[in-house]
Amino acid sequence: MILFDEIHEQPAVLENLIRTGWADIREIGRSLRQQKFRYIFLVARGTSDNAGRYATYLLGSHNRLPVALATPSLFSLFHTAPDLSDAVVVGVSQSGKSPDIVSVLQEAREQACVTVAITNAPQSPLAAAATFSIDIQAGLERAVAATKSYSAQLLSFVLLSEAMRGTENLPDDVLRLPEWVAQALQVSEIAKEGAQRYRFCQHCVVVGRGFNYATAYEWSLKLKELTYMVAEPYSSADFRHGPIAVVEPGFPVLSIAPSGVLYPDLFSLAQELHQHKAAEQLIISDNPEILRLAQVGLPLPAGIPEWLSPLVSIVPAQLFAYHLTSVKGHDTDQPRGLRKVTETV
Amino acid sequence: MILFDEIHEQPAVLENLIRTGWADIREIGRSLRQQKFRYIFLVARGTSDNAGRYATYLLGSHNRLPVALATPSLFSLFHTAPDLSDAVVVGVSQSGKSPDIVSVLQEAREQACVTVAITNAPQSPLAAAATFSIDIQAGLERAVAATKSYSAQLLSFVLLSEAMRGTENLPDDVLRLPEWVAQALQVSEIAKEGAQRYRFCQHCVVVGRGFNYATAYEWSLKLKELTYMVAEPYSSADFRHGPIAVVEPGFPVLSIAPSGVLYPDLFSLAQELHQHKAAEQLIISDNPEILRLAQVGLPLPAGIPEWLSPLVSIVPAQLFAYHLTSVKGHDTDQPRGLRKVTETV
Repeated sequence: MILFDEIHEQPAVLENLIRTGWADIREIGRSLRQQKFRYIFLVARGTSDNAGRYATYLLGSHNRLPVALATPSLFSLFHTAPDLSDAVVVGVSQSGKSPDIVSVLQEAREQACVTVAITNAPQSPLAAAATFSIDIQAGLERAVAATKSYSAQLLSFVLLSEAMRGTENLPDDVLRLPEWVAQALQVSEIAKEGAQRYRFCQHCVVVGRGFNYATAYEWSLKLKELTYMVAEPYSSADFRHGPIAVVEPGFPVLSIAPSGVLYPDLFSLAQELHQHKAAEQLIISDNPEILRLAQVGLPLPAGIPEWLSPLVSIVPAQLFAYHLTSVKGHDTDQPRGLRKVTETV
Repeated sequence: MILFDEIHEQPAVLENLIRTGWADIREIGRSLRQQKFRYIFLVARGTSDNAGRYATYLLGSHNRLPVALATPSLFSLFHTAPDLSDAVVVGVSQSGKSPDIVSVLQEAREQACVTVAITNAPQSPLAAAATFSIDIQAGLERAVAATKSYSAQLLSFVLLSEAMRGTENLPDDVLRLPEWVAQALQVSEIAKEGAQRYRFCQHCVVVGRGFNYATAYEWSLKLKELTYMVAEPYSSADFRHGPIAVVEPGFPVLSIAPSGVLYPDLFSLAQELHQHKAAEQLIISDNPEILRLAQVGLPLPAGIPEWLSPLVSIVPAQLFAYHLTSVKGHDTDQPRGLRKVTETV
């Protein structure tokens, strides 16, 4: 039940970070505005890397900043690291301990780059290696599968993006996030019922695009870590470039399709999967039109702007993964073969 | 048989590109050396995106250039594109036609960036939008699953990387690539026999790291397009950060593990999968030590330097995907539901 509780802590975690974290992050944003840099070089693994995928869209569209997702082995295992001139280097890690992530920040510092750590462990080696450190304040995360630390990492990027735009007072939509997440938690019983249907499902694909490309990756990671299904994430565009060939009648496709610029693309894919492929669909959306195409629909609260939707749409995804893990008879708190802190080089 | 023939054309395609393409690419590299830029912003989808993954390691370690893999929807669907100052923008597409890829190069040009197209269609919209255009000269590719155009894209990046280093005469190892690829083709009968064992396999993971992270992605894409298996690619490090939980006894893990800096990491993973997980392993390597841990081993020629190994290690992977497609009774030239040119926005 640790995982279930941590999923439900998310409104409080977000509320707390907004209230006690904003002042510090606003200062970090102010300092970064004084620097000359051309792009963000972002390094992370696992769930934190999925938060980085969100940052790619957020910083790209709201701050006009290109984001490069780093390949840590270029730093930890090869002799000559890339030249990071004019980059701000951001490391994201819940534990702040993975040696390969720390090594990138150390190299960046030796190259005189400004570096930012985003971590749940302000005393960690990652925080120590960084010019600026953002404490996501998610509290001790005891379940091996990360949930509340992911939401808090997404929110940290939202606050950092606002700070780098020079925002003084956070927009109302950001302040409403804890309430929307609390509303999204109410889908738990629907997710529990829908999970029954997936008792014997062994593989699926998970589709999202734009801001919710990150949600597709994170949902798929939760399913793999917890339910041991092979769940492969795609953008709807990449999915059409080849992998859609795997879909035969009854093949399960999970989608995240909230209202916004990318909704029509997800809707047309869902229609094609429904009409021509007879796929099995599980869809997270606030729009009843697309939910009607799904065998299982997980509704979202209405009115959430697309750029903030990943903080809310991940909640039904986490709940579905949690309930499916129980339905399949697996341990929700301690998946086989995993530890909380993975140290890769 | 079109696919089989195109796989076997690869030595000739590489030989031709080295012979007739190097002079032009050397000039492009010379021009790029005159420019001031800080990083590469690379845009592609599908197989071409996998060639871009190789470029991330190659340009990072040989040219010290950070590479950002672009998210095209930021350009095609959102209103404000990222500021690409001090980036060289590279678009990779076999057909040169996908509107989202072309739109990124057009935006980059409006921002006064230098742009490079890498395409098999020198008269395409992508080539027209670019400052410099590299013709990969792979000849008409008729099978829907790309093979020879992938090898030619990898070689184009090798030549471009050398050109940007100021190389006059290509290193001997590059000149030997066609011969190594011809040797690798001789594994066809072993791949055919090994494919029998996978007749009823429905899902697997594919693991590679560093330069061969690209090979893992490309192998996995061929398996999905052709055999309709759910095949998910991983770096061995990311695989340990959660997804390894899916492995139960008999679970199929396909790996690419040639000699080099990353071999020990792949070897230790293969040992763990063998001893503790009783996984089913299919391994591509030149090292008999790791091949002994596999139920199916696909040997590579000896002596290939790690940085060039992706051009050779993809060959047994393509052959295995081809033979498995036949074993499963599917069409090798025209997979269901796919077209050669995918136009996404």
